Amino acid sequence: MSTDPVDTADVVIVGGGSGGYSCALRAAQLGMSVVLVESGKLGGTCLHNGCIPTKALLHAAEIVESVRSAADFGIKASLDGVDITAVHAYKQKVVDGLYRGLEGLIASRQIRVVRGSGRVVGDHTVAVDLVDGGTSRHRGEALVLATGSQSRTLPGIEIGGPIMTSDLALELDSIPKSAIVLGGGVIGCEFASLWASLGVEVTVVEAAPRLLPTEDDWSSKQLTRAFRKRGITVRAGVALSAARVAEAGVTVDLAGESGPLHADILLVAVGRGPRTAGLGLEEAGIRIDRGFVVVDDALQTSVPGIYAVGDIVPGPQLAHRGFANGIFVAEQLAGLDCVPVADSGIPRVTYSHPEVASIGLTEAEAVERHGDVTTAVYDLGGNGKSRILQTSGGVKVVRAGADGPVVGIHLVGDRVGELIGEAQLIYNWEATADDVAGLVHAHPTQAEALGEAHLALAGKPLHAHA
Amino acid sequence: MSTDPVDTADVVIVGGGSGGYSCALRAAQLGMSVVLVESGKLGGTCLHNGCIPTKALLHAAEIVESVRSAADFGIKASLDGVDITAVHAYKQKVVDGLYRGLEGLIASRQIRVVRGSGRVVGDHTVAVDLVDGGTSRHRGEALVLATGSQSRTLPGIEIGGPIMTSDLALELDSIPKSAIVLGGGVIGCEFASLWASLGVEVTVVEAAPRLLPTEDDWSSKQLTRAFRKRGITVRAGVALSAARVAEAGVTVDLAGESGPLHADILLVAVGRGPRTAGLGLEEAGIRIDRGFVVVDDALQTSVPGIYAVGDIVPGPQLAHRGFANGIFVAEQLAGLDCVPVADSGIPRVTYSHPEVASIGLTEAEAVERHGDVTTAVYDLGGNGKSRILQTSGGVKVVRAGADGPVVGIHLVGDRVGELIGEAQLIYNWEATADDVAGLVHAHPTQAEALGEAHLALAGKPLHAHA
Repeated sequence: MSTDPVDTADVVIVGGGSGGYSCALRAAQLGMSVVLVESGKLGGTCLHNGCIPTKALLHAAEIVESVRSAADFGIKASLDGVDITAVHAYKQKVVDGLYRGLEGLIASRQIRVVRGSGRVVGDHTVAVDLVDGGTSRHRGEALVLATGSQSRTLPGIEIGGPIMTSDLALELDSIPKSAIVLGGGVIGCEFASLWASLGVEVTVVEAAPRLLPTEDDWSSKQLTRAFRKRGITVRAGVALSAARVAEAGVTVDLAGESGPLHADILLVAVGRGPRTAGLGLEEAGIRIDRGFVVVDDALQTSVPGIYAVGDIVPGPQLAHRGFANGIFVAEQLAGLDCVPVADSGIPRVTYSHPEVASIGLTEAEAVERHGDVTTAVYDLGGNGKSRILQTSGGVKVVRAGADGPVVGIHLVGDRVGELIGEAQLIYNWEATADDVAGLVHAHPTQAEALGEAHLALAGKPLHAHA
Repeated sequence: MSTDPVDTADVVIVGGGSGGYSCALRAAQLGMSVVLVESGKLGGTCLHNGCIPTKALLHAAEIVESVRSAADFGIKASLDGVDITAVHAYKQKVVDGLYRGLEGLIASRQIRVVRGSGRVVGDHTVAVDLVDGGTSRHRGEALVLATGSQSRTLPGIEIGGPIMTSDLALELDSIPKSAIVLGGGVIGCEFASLWASLGVEVTVVEAAPRLLPTEDDWSSKQLTRAFRKRGITVRAGVALSAARVAEAGVTVDLAGESGPLHADILLVAVGRGPRTAGLGLEEAGIRIDRGFVVVDDALQTSVPGIYAVGDIVPGPQLAHRGFANGIFVAEQLAGLDCVPVADSGIPRVTYSHPEVASIGLTEAEAVERHGDVTTAVYDLGGNGKSRILQTSGGVKVVRAGADGPVVGIHLVGDRVGELIGEAQLIYNWEATADDVAGLVHAHPTQAEALGEAHLALAGKPLHAHA
């Protein structure tokens, strides 16, 4: 038992990623004293190994595509190569800028950051092995667990060498000739898209029958068609049975197929698991289910006064869900009257080329929940701005019954991730098609397609056949 | 007096631009027989000489900027030139595709298109000089005037040669070395931006004290700063006193300045005037005020049963306002219970680099209307996606009082035009800052900045200083 004196604070937060730091910022703003325990850099996976660096790489890929297709727009340009060191420098500059901003915010709100690995030791107390050596102990009126997630692999697939997770794939210092992506979820599709733009021969292997299996079936079809047009091989409904390092790359066996596949690298993108081991959680009486922390509607664990936020809570593992969780817990601790956003009300974006974005229910989920549903699909072919961008895709809106509220919106197309801001308002405010159809979208924008889909659903299509 | 037999229809529409064709499409859908009189191509200024072709050119300019700045993202590319013939071909392809779509819609709804120039001759009757020769007469239960607008000039400035309006500027078959843009409104700013991207030395001369004088002062400042960074010379608060064709270009005198300016071309972008002359309107008893058609809240002119929509009605001259007007009149004629969207609820976008977009009131207008207002500005420097795009700018939200509804939203930055879809919902649904702050925006998107601005206004900034 440590003999460290116990430091106290209103809130002690373990983990400085999206959920942890947003909780810290909001709690401090509400006048609470806050200790934030983090052994790495503040900002977590999202800022350093996830959202931000991948989207920077995907933007570099967009630049490549722009140069490559410049002649289609009348611009004479030549692609002289990808300077991968410079791409990483650009990516790092984006990360560093945001990191500096975050550090400034944390400092300005007088949040005490303890650099070390925390472990719950009971009585709302966290014991920390400090990065600089030594230990410390912190007791909070409330404890918030925000330790995030890490890349997983499958049994029998050992990470190492050319077999890698997204952590390493993000930092590759050369561009492979070929890659197999195991997993057609968000991360797998984003890397497949990125690499295809950089000239890599890509095969995506997904055990489920389709890419992005949690998205609406329509979205998966649109994306698969677009990927195939781009030369990406999509092998859906196929399980990978073995993967081994081979001479100059990796060899992969697919279940039920005779010949193996070979590629320079294998990205294992089969999801992310919660980081909850070795934190003393179960010993402290906190209920864990398959590695995730079990919480109630108020994000409280089975131990009163201990909360969990972000990726360790079952549900979509998204930075912006972490932000929302963190803010919610801080406001709750301050006694504010606050309502958590349901997971279905949290927007989802896959930043591939084309992008896929959604809010609310898929059509299948809506049928299950509401029985009868009606839908409208608006093709981006009718949308001026999308034609200008030379992107295709569409908007699908799902409505409960024949005149109920909109319960799901699904978008496919370059840049449509930005439209999910409007879509989430429509969904969360339980708007009807008429509520949206009666308003005016700017011409020519891609957002107009959202308006047109609602016009169609309201029975009054404008730039679409009835 | 013509002896043509009088053809009858439920609705006769004069003008096949945005307001006219949208009215025709909706009226036909509601079961009315429709005659649409148009001497040119359906689609009007927007499709053929306005929104669509300019935005295509601006996208070609975006490609140029992407190639030019590719190294900042780690991509080695060289700009080998702009093939202006190919740029026009791309632009025309976009226009043609949309035009075919529109013709298909018009045909599928059995709208009768009469190719000719219409003139109101009383008794809800339009006399048409047919393009193919001959004349015809059409009487409608209702008449809808939708003749649109045309580029204006100033007294003393004669259009011709290197002195041109946007109609010709759109079709230039070579890129000038230098250009003076008279007028810092939407059209002037878009051409200034386009040309600067193409390497033209640009000077914008605006008589009002700032660019985009109808936008919020903050937006003007942001845009002016961005334009200056791009090397565009902005001369605001300066009147042009004379312009004359000179050897190899044009010479311009500015009021109160000694030396004249010289450039290869002068774009006169001082606004667009309504096309209402020679249509027999005043003779038919329709009230006209300074060229515009006077209408009531139901868009009815001073003659019962005759309506006007789009750019000939005083207010913002925007295609999407025309669409909304057209649909509203059609629904009204069908006896539907419909509410017109107020002009303040119609989004505005300037598609320059960076873009400027807004909905509702400027801060100054809000102060005038509501007395006390509160505002929040969120700088795109804190927005991950904007850093990835390397764009700067921000979001300004204006609220009535200390906790009233949001009455104005103003955005500056590349691609922010798409965010106005969400912004117009917030404004038109009279949301409060809390209504928006409680919801979740996808990370990393630019739409997040809209969320952050509302969080700040609600007193709970996340990625921003308090």
